Amino acid sequence: MFTPRSIRHCRACGAPTEYRTPADDNRERAVCTACDTVHYENPLNVVGTVPELDGRVLLCRRNIEPRKGFWTLPAGFMELGETTAQGALRETAEEAGADIALGPLFTVLNVPHVGQLHLYYLARMTSPRLDPGPETIEARLFDEAEVPWDELAFRTVRYTLERFFDDRRRGQFGTHSADIA
Amino acid sequence: MFTPRSIRHCRACGAPTEYRTPADDNRERAVCTACDTVHYENPLNVVGTVPELDGRVLLCRRNIEPRKGFWTLPAGFMELGETTAQGALRETAEEAGADIALGPLFTVLNVPHVGQLHLYYLARMTSPRLDPGPETIEARLFDEAEVPWDELAFRTVRYTLERFFDDRRRGQFGTHSADIA
Repeated sequence: MFTPRSIRHCRACGAPTEYRTPADDNRERAVCTACDTVHYENPLNVVGTVPELDGRVLLCRRNIEPRKGFWTLPAGFMELGETTAQGALRETAEEAGADIALGPLFTVLNVPHVGQLHLYYLARMTSPRLDPGPETIEARLFDEAEVPWDELAFRTVRYTLERFFDDRRRGQFGTHSADIA
Repeated sequence: MFTPRSIRHCRACGAPTEYRTPADDNRERAVCTACDTVHYENPLNVVGTVPELDGRVLLCRRNIEPRKGFWTLPAGFMELGETTAQGALRETAEEAGADIALGPLFTVLNVPHVGQLHLYYLARMTSPRLDPGPETIEARLFDEAEVPWDELAFRTVRYTLERFFDDRRRGQFGTHSADIA
């Protein structure tokens, strides 16, 4: 999804664009050579959950690239018209078919080299039922000792799981921010 | 900036798009009628700060629409290649010319009806110097009793200031999430 400077034509009129700095701006944008429409490119939000049931955590094995075959927390791109919490609930339903009660915001993780911000919520599974969707090979619950640390899909997932188990040991959950370089 | 379903032409080839649900998707996207490129539209992040100096808070009077003439905390759209913290620092420099030391993430506010997520950081001004940019009519420091509550530009600014003064009274700052309906 991270394709900066990929706008070759204007979304309004279809004419070619060129990358230049508009008069009232301080960085290059794709500007239409015919109608002067300025096209902005901005970071995307990925929203997900840390679903827990009886002390175990739900992970999904990815059936899509990137990182197909690796394990992830349920998460995906936030859509227009929804909140971060609604997106996190939706992705958990789509990828794992899990019923959850959403808890507080848990991690806020910048991944600037791919133009993304990842936000994970704590969640409690309200039923053991799982029904993975087409983007998931399998979904299952892991004790802390069973977590496949070497087969995790993304560093934001590792960071979020590490903070989760740390906070659970201390008996107090915070909201954690970090940058993934 | 919130213009959903505004993609009339393909950014890759310039041909007309149509809004339809791609085969592997569950919502309508702008799909190119010539090359099948799918164009996604996603929420934007607005990042800003609550700069404090000697117990007073820095506000900027907007010189641009929307809400020209109203008061705001320094904030603006997050750019590709930067983190939320870097964007918040940049906007504070651009809008107020203020030198700050950034503190922790303070508010995370969904504004789904305009497709935005607002994130504010606590900040300490390291100098009383102010040098407002072209987007700001004036920048000045306010005691709590002086804050122009009826002339604030956005509800996310009001929410963030309310939490700031509340937390300061309790002597403990948290990270606050909310949805602005």
